[in-house]
Amino acid sequence: MTKPYDLLTLGEILLRLSPSPEERLSSGDFFRKSVGGAELNVAAGASLLGLRTGILSKIPDNALGEYVQNQIQLRGVDTRYLALDPLRSARLGIYYYEYGSSPRKPQVVYDRLHTSARSMTLSDFPESVYSSARCFHTSGITLALSEDCRALSIEMIRRFKEQGALISFDVNYRSNLWSGEEARYWIEQILPLVDIFFCSEDTARLTFHKEGDAREILKSFTEDYPISIVAASQRIVHSPKCHSFGSLLYQASTDTFYQENPYEKIEVLDRIGTGDAFVAGTLYGLLAHSMDCQYAQRIGNAASALKHSVPGDLPISRLREVETLIAEHTGSASGEMVR
Amino acid sequence: MTKPYDLLTLGEILLRLSPSPEERLSSGDFFRKSVGGAELNVAAGASLLGLRTGILSKIPDNALGEYVQNQIQLRGVDTRYLALDPLRSARLGIYYYEYGSSPRKPQVVYDRLHTSARSMTLSDFPESVYSSARCFHTSGITLALSEDCRALSIEMIRRFKEQGALISFDVNYRSNLWSGEEARYWIEQILPLVDIFFCSEDTARLTFHKEGDAREILKSFTEDYPISIVAASQRIVHSPKCHSFGSLLYQASTDTFYQENPYEKIEVLDRIGTGDAFVAGTLYGLLAHSMDCQYAQRIGNAASALKHSVPGDLPISRLREVETLIAEHTGSASGEMVR
Amino acid sequence: MTKPYDLLTLGEILLRLSPSPEERLSSGDFFRKSVGGAELNVAAGASLLGLRTGILSKIPDNALGEYVQNQIQLRGVDTRYLALDPLRSARLGIYYYEYGSSPRKPQVVYDRLHTSARSMTLSDFPESVYSSARCFHTSGITLALSEDCRALSIEMIRRFKEQGALISFDVNYRSNLWSGEEARYWIEQILPLVDIFFCSEDTARLTFHKEGDAREILKSFTEDYPISIVAASQRIVHSPKCHSFGSLLYQASTDTFYQENPYEKIEVLDRIGTGDAFVAGTLYGLLAHSMDCQYAQRIGNAASALKHSVPGDLPISRLREVETLIAEHTGSASGEMVR
Amino acid sequence: MTKPYDLLTLGEILLRLSPSPEERLSSGDFFRKSVGGAELNVAAGASLLGLRTGILSKIPDNALGEYVQNQIQLRGVDTRYLALDPLRSARLGIYYYEYGSSPRKPQVVYDRLHTSARSMTLSDFPESVYSSARCFHTSGITLALSEDCRALSIEMIRRFKEQGALISFDVNYRSNLWSGEEARYWIEQILPLVDIFFCSEDTARLTFHKEGDAREILKSFTEDYPISIVAASQRIVHSPKCHSFGSLLYQASTDTFYQENPYEKIEVLDRIGTGDAFVAGTLYGLLAHSMDCQYAQRIGNAASALKHSVPGDLPISRLREVETLIAEHTGSASGEMVR
Amino acid sequence: MTKPYDLLTLGEILLRLSPSPEERLSSGDFFRKSVGGAELNVAAGASLLGLRTGILSKIPDNALGEYVQNQIQLRGVDTRYLALDPLRSARLGIYYYEYGSSPRKPQVVYDRLHTSARSMTLSDFPESVYSSARCFHTSGITLALSEDCRALSIEMIRRFKEQGALISFDVNYRSNLWSGEEARYWIEQILPLVDIFFCSEDTARLTFHKEGDAREILKSFTEDYPISIVAASQRIVHSPKCHSFGSLLYQASTDTFYQENPYEKIEVLDRIGTGDAFVAGTLYGLLAHSMDCQYAQRIGNAASALKHSVPGDLPISRLREVETLIAEHTGSASGEMVR
Amino acid sequence: MTKPYDLLTLGEILLRLSPSPEERLSSGDFFRKSVGGAELNVAAGASLLGLRTGILSKIPDNALGEYVQNQIQLRGVDTRYLALDPLRSARLGIYYYEYGSSPRKPQVVYDRLHTSARSMTLSDFPESVYSSARCFHTSGITLALSEDCRALSIEMIRRFKEQGALISFDVNYRSNLWSGEEARYWIEQILPLVDIFFCSEDTARLTFHKEGDAREILKSFTEDYPISIVAASQRIVHSPKCHSFGSLLYQASTDTFYQENPYEKIEVLDRIGTGDAFVAGTLYGLLAHSMDCQYAQRIGNAASALKHSVPGDLPISRLREVETLIAEHTGSASGEMVR
Repeated sequence: MTKPYDLLTLGEILLRLSPSPEERLSSGDFFRKSVGGAELNVAAGASLLGLRTGILSKIPDNALGEYVQNQIQLRGVDTRYLALDPLRSARLGIYYYEYGSSPRKPQVVYDRLHTSARSMTLSDFPESVYSSARCFHTSGITLALSEDCRALSIEMIRRFKEQGALISFDVNYRSNLWSGEEARYWIEQILPLVDIFFCSEDTARLTFHKEGDAREILKSFTEDYPISIVAASQRIVHSPKCHSFGSLLYQASTDTFYQENPYEKIEVLDRIGTGDAFVAGTLYGLLAHSMDCQYAQRIGNAASALKHSVPGDLPISRLREVETLIAEHTGSASGEMVR
Repeated sequence: MTKPYDLLTLGEILLRLSPSPEERLSSGDFFRKSVGGAELNVAAGASLLGLRTGILSKIPDNALGEYVQNQIQLRGVDTRYLALDPLRSARLGIYYYEYGSSPRKPQVVYDRLHTSARSMTLSDFPESVYSSARCFHTSGITLALSEDCRALSIEMIRRFKEQGALISFDVNYRSNLWSGEEARYWIEQILPLVDIFFCSEDTARLTFHKEGDAREILKSFTEDYPISIVAASQRIVHSPKCHSFGSLLYQASTDTFYQENPYEKIEVLDRIGTGDAFVAGTLYGLLAHSMDCQYAQRIGNAASALKHSVPGDLPISRLREVETLIAEHTGSASGEMVR
Repeated sequence: MTKPYDLLTLGEILLRLSPSPEERLSSGDFFRKSVGGAELNVAAGASLLGLRTGILSKIPDNALGEYVQNQIQLRGVDTRYLALDPLRSARLGIYYYEYGSSPRKPQVVYDRLHTSARSMTLSDFPESVYSSARCFHTSGITLALSEDCRALSIEMIRRFKEQGALISFDVNYRSNLWSGEEARYWIEQILPLVDIFFCSEDTARLTFHKEGDAREILKSFTEDYPISIVAASQRIVHSPKCHSFGSLLYQASTDTFYQENPYEKIEVLDRIGTGDAFVAGTLYGLLAHSMDCQYAQRIGNAASALKHSVPGDLPISRLREVETLIAEHTGSASGEMVR
Repeated sequence: MTKPYDLLTLGEILLRLSPSPEERLSSGDFFRKSVGGAELNVAAGASLLGLRTGILSKIPDNALGEYVQNQIQLRGVDTRYLALDPLRSARLGIYYYEYGSSPRKPQVVYDRLHTSARSMTLSDFPESVYSSARCFHTSGITLALSEDCRALSIEMIRRFKEQGALISFDVNYRSNLWSGEEARYWIEQILPLVDIFFCSEDTARLTFHKEGDAREILKSFTEDYPISIVAASQRIVHSPKCHSFGSLLYQASTDTFYQENPYEKIEVLDRIGTGDAFVAGTLYGLLAHSMDCQYAQRIGNAASALKHSVPGDLPISRLREVETLIAEHTGSASGEMVR
Repeated sequence: MTKPYDLLTLGEILLRLSPSPEERLSSGDFFRKSVGGAELNVAAGASLLGLRTGILSKIPDNALGEYVQNQIQLRGVDTRYLALDPLRSARLGIYYYEYGSSPRKPQVVYDRLHTSARSMTLSDFPESVYSSARCFHTSGITLALSEDCRALSIEMIRRFKEQGALISFDVNYRSNLWSGEEARYWIEQILPLVDIFFCSEDTARLTFHKEGDAREILKSFTEDYPISIVAASQRIVHSPKCHSFGSLLYQASTDTFYQENPYEKIEVLDRIGTGDAFVAGTLYGLLAHSMDCQYAQRIGNAASALKHSVPGDLPISRLREVETLIAEHTGSASGEMVR
Repeated sequence: MTKPYDLLTLGEILLRLSPSPEERLSSGDFFRKSVGGAELNVAAGASLLGLRTGILSKIPDNALGEYVQNQIQLRGVDTRYLALDPLRSARLGIYYYEYGSSPRKPQVVYDRLHTSARSMTLSDFPESVYSSARCFHTSGITLALSEDCRALSIEMIRRFKEQGALISFDVNYRSNLWSGEEARYWIEQILPLVDIFFCSEDTARLTFHKEGDAREILKSFTEDYPISIVAASQRIVHSPKCHSFGSLLYQASTDTFYQENPYEKIEVLDRIGTGDAFVAGTLYGLLAHSMDCQYAQRIGNAASALKHSVPGDLPISRLREVETLIAEHTGSASGEMVR
């Protein structure tokens, strides 16, 4: 019997408020409003590509909550599992984002304490959710948000795993939410349950004290835990508005590394969410193409490269656009595959 | 020796986020950003008219705090007594405002818990502040925000009074902040210290259980407490976009009521802050014209009538504009003065 | 066994391009873009209120088609049954709408020939669709678009009826699409299958040659055909920007007329789609509340009244907002019910 | 032999800078830019209706001058006779216009001294111009601008008259440019040459000391001078955003008054230029329809009524739109014609 | 006797709808509207530079047609020969243009079937047109649009030639309109009549099967046909937002090649219409300066380089701006001339 | 006793009107409005960094003057010494600024003759002003504006000097205001009074006929006059949108040159006012840090580098932002100090 969702993700949804690229937080008369959040970005990206996805979160039961629902639905992500917080103290987390212009750096102001999402518990979600998805994804951000969120994440991972779902986890380390030590401790609690693991090389070194080259590091995770696939995005920042993006992916069962030529000289309009677009593309590739790692990586890289060109956190590329870019990209310079 | 400020006000400053008049909170891509807050509105309105004013409040020490400072300075209000909250948990209260269009009502979503302003205490302000102003103004909103704010308000009123300042107080009852019973209890604690008292007829009836006609009610406050002047704005809502606005003012020392012809058929673009504009104009008139009640009322009414025509909380009329309107208004139909 | 949809509607989806309310088609640098279409409006309105809805239509398989899909998903309407036209000649119908300002009338320029929707046939939709909905709705516009659309509409009505769905039909007469004579001829072919019939009094007189007062006219349809419920919106245009809106509804089984006090002095920002919002609200009321005609009418009237306040074709009110308005409306003046 | 222009007008062209209708000159970040000027408005309005028109003026030979040329060309007015001022001191006059919102009045700030137009002299225009037009129009504004402009106007009127052109003149009295006494003195110098004379009843009384009712006043001008047609617009200001507009027209040769029912309850978005639209429409009617006064008045009234609905000085209605409105207007209530 | 036009062009005029550079066709709420079309772009560019130009085309007789007329007049192009299509099925072709951002490519969606322009025939234009212009220009796009357009183009070329006009033709090959084989067949029918021929090196190779280097290719056309001047633009795409632009021009009578240093590192805001700006500049140079090829090329190159900096299809540079750029450009590095 | 101002500056304030970066002066419908002026820019930049500043100027006493006051107050600059011009001929100077896009250069149109500021005289300012500031700053632009302004500048410099203020002067040579010869003559009159002198190397060579390398030039000024500090900004224009910025500073008392590594590859959004931001930062550093030249230069360079990233003339960086950038800048590559 088919499960109704290919992918469910758990995480906080934030309102993002940004002045226009030429304005500043401290001036101007307008904010552009949009929604974001690492796990929502993944669900939205995967939905646009073709997966049946949904988001598990908690939002205020007011007009801002309606805005969030509208924006999520627009991307085809199911909102059935959005818990609505009826309290008068219910609040939606906010982050204010100011674009940079060299030498001025981008600037973020967070206002995400006391949010409805931080108070999520198991009782906010029906028991039936755990058997309804082929894959469950969350990230270190959810673990770090609050004790409630951490307990919820760990228990959900366990329940989804029990019901046969693949478990996908992105470390997504944020030093403003917790220390590296805390991150390592709690993530190590769940790694025995994780199937698909996203962790950048830098984080692996700094948080998990890994050593060696990138390939050694990725492989080591699969040696310590029963992880099937480890993926690390690889970014070179030539300048704030010009990056290169690629990734390294390791599949334990075949002991194979995957790495195609990176996308060079990407014009960076907005880098927020480009890592999540990579996760979304990779999960789409794996779940829609029988865990084909090469295809998954290509989709992940291309989806991320495209995300750089649009403002906001959320991906906006459907499969046709991604596959067209891959054809152009691999046409001129085919990626390598190394055993 | 002259005090450096004519008027200092105490109160929370909020970020106001509004979609364009034709859009809704749950849709659209932009919020217009501005600042507001009952006591700031009063200080800004009085500053534009010509008083030397300042605001006592607490805001986050970040880019949003800078935005607030810029907007306050623009109106000529001194920002020296804005305490900056350095904590990472510092936050600026927000209110989301959606314009109405009959039969759809305007809609407000508050997100003003856990703010820096709610944690204001005496230690946030220098001792010198109390001797630096001719008049101190605050409102029931500040009393209602938190225990810290209430304690602060009451103690500040006492200290300013000791230093010879006039005390101005606007009831500004908000049922979403406290009950009528609470409001009455706490306001009665400070009424013995109040010189200029703003209270609408409705609030006087519902919160203070006053009876009789408007004149009897206003006068009764001066019989119960040593209040010099009591003022009540008077509004008729013909339709959401068409109001009439006037006021009734009573001076105890001369036992005189003041009431001019109201402004009829005001086109209402944004009614938020129109009551504060009335307070600002009245205080300007009293403080700049030796407590001339008739002049004060005319300025208050005209400043409020003009405020209806601009979006946002803050008044925008300088003295010339207000006096020009008064000349037109009184030219055609002179107000009555009744002993 | 539950059917997956409460309501499926069939109709063309148009791109709507409008200058800002103060600009004209022949000037200005921008068009506001949105989507509309009578039957989409109905599905979207019913979805926002709480029904599980979907739309049957055909759109180009290109970026404009993606735009349409995004906008439909945003309102929670299922896009599974949107046929994608892969031809290079595929096109999305357009209508250009210029707001009026008395004495200048609103102006519409249609560009809706040769569209993908006009070529819809049975083969564009899976056989399973007919058993998947509790109610099927379309309008005279679809009958009038093309021979293909007419044949499709009639056959679909038959198949849905066979599978036990209620059939809802809105005459929606448009003189620029067909003559009154044609309209009457073809609509009379399907009236034997219709359960819920929407027809304004004017159209009933002019197109169906009905006579008598409004009640006699509505009732006569149920005497000629096995129609359960007939509804007619009732609008008074006080001025281009001020209307009153109410409706008359007749239920044959109980021989009861329903008519509540109309919404008076509605501020009209955009009247397009207000009739569809009435249909959407009425269908929601009937389908979600066991054919409760009084409730359905109240929802229909209120949903329509609210729609006048937002630009674009599509309703934007969720159930809470509609019910809040009804409470205010009926609080002051309760509607009448007449047998 | 046909003259190449039906109508040439002489006058200053101004840059108009306006904040959005809800903003003020002293706030906001944007000005809407457009061009205007009484005589340009007349030429543009007549061109849109179908006359071959041109404008005589002087503008700076820089990017702002190019802007002016573009905007004039857009309306189909010939720019061949625009003298370009090559001096570094060349400047374009500006007027800043702030919309009102009751009780706040609209506000104008003029910055039109030292302009290129004020220095226009005969040598700026080729001798051939005088024989190239069927009608020449200017207004009292041009007479009032400067001594150069006054001398130029008077001489041009003489030369055009000599070459057989009809002379049209609109008093357009502006108290900020000259006194009533000056206006009367200079206008009386040219009245012996005028064929079509536009003068409001108020101006006739105050400036020309006319007495009697409107009809007597209009007729008296034709008794004092060899004027063929006198026209006066008639406006009732119900409120700043609601006017009625009509006119009274007198033809001396037939001793006939023309007066149709006024346009009632016009929604006033921008009243600037509505008088010029009336002049433009009337001149179109006379010049294109063999001096048919009834037709001319209907076009003039309708063109003016329509102008109220668009921002800016310039008319935007083509003949079809004007005639459609006339059909609606006269359909319901036909105007009167009185001998 | 002087002909009234220096240049008449024949071609379809399209409405161009673009989201802002950061938005996508499938998202956002606004389209920027403008007009374009290869032959209109040429007429507009030449008009701004100083030629007396007009456009031959057919547009709907509705508000969109008025928009088109306004935009054309703004650029000084005569609209006398715009046929107005009165049919209800009249439509204006549209193209939707989405800007790219590397690695995302620009995207175009065409909606230009069934347009009024495709149905143009000889009877839409007066016989007098053929003797009224010194030069007639059209492009391969017009030949490719429809059989009607092809027949019209060929016949017009013949009639203009008979009346002594120079014939200018730009191949402008578009693979989405016809095949290379078709293009070659039909263009070869008209080449015996062409005086000035624009064809890129790539098109010459792919469509006309030319071989050799660029100079050999250009010269060969003049050997096969009685063409006087052949011009090819030369573009290097360093990146989507950085191009170099120059050209090669060959004059048969003097057997001379012209090639100046290209414009390097042009910031590309919008490349659409830059080829047409080159044609416009070249034709201006030839027609206004007695077929001076060096001058014509410099104007063509500079006009094209400048066009890259403005959004939309239409050039916006007047002669002064172009000549100033040429002075800067040739000052630092003078072009070469080779016999 | 402390003086109330750290810095007072004297200069004209202009209204700046700019189309959006992609538009042109001759097209588009909007101007972005802002204020600027070399000396205002300096006062505003220094105020944001922490100095108590004020501006001496003269503006019209109308709504545009209010706009100017609001914008100045927003930056915390005191407006007490703004003389208000009550004449009807009062006018605010304007400059129109069009952004460039290679190869199209930025374009400026000045409209700054006959302004209120040009008529400033001593009587516009109270005698008390001269003893109220620690430092007085003006520039060559004020000297060049008019004879009135020149006489005023020279006399003010003398009076401030007498009262013990430091005199700061920026040559700011503008060839459109005066000749190099005039500039040299008048500036040499005041150099005996100047303490802090800003002059670029190019201007020193061309206007003051200096020879030798940059260091020799700067030092020579201190040999000819009793100047304490000479500063020259140093800019490399890699392309219109990419500059490098640094400076050279010489302190006579210690015979020391200061020069840190320049800021490389600055993204240039708007270069107007970046020189003034350098002056503002340098003056802040000197006045707030006991004439510490190294600190002053770092603040000056960083403040200027940051200014490039925001539109408009006025700096927008507070001290924290500037110091954060310095920390990043000096962290990677420390500047040199050379005796």
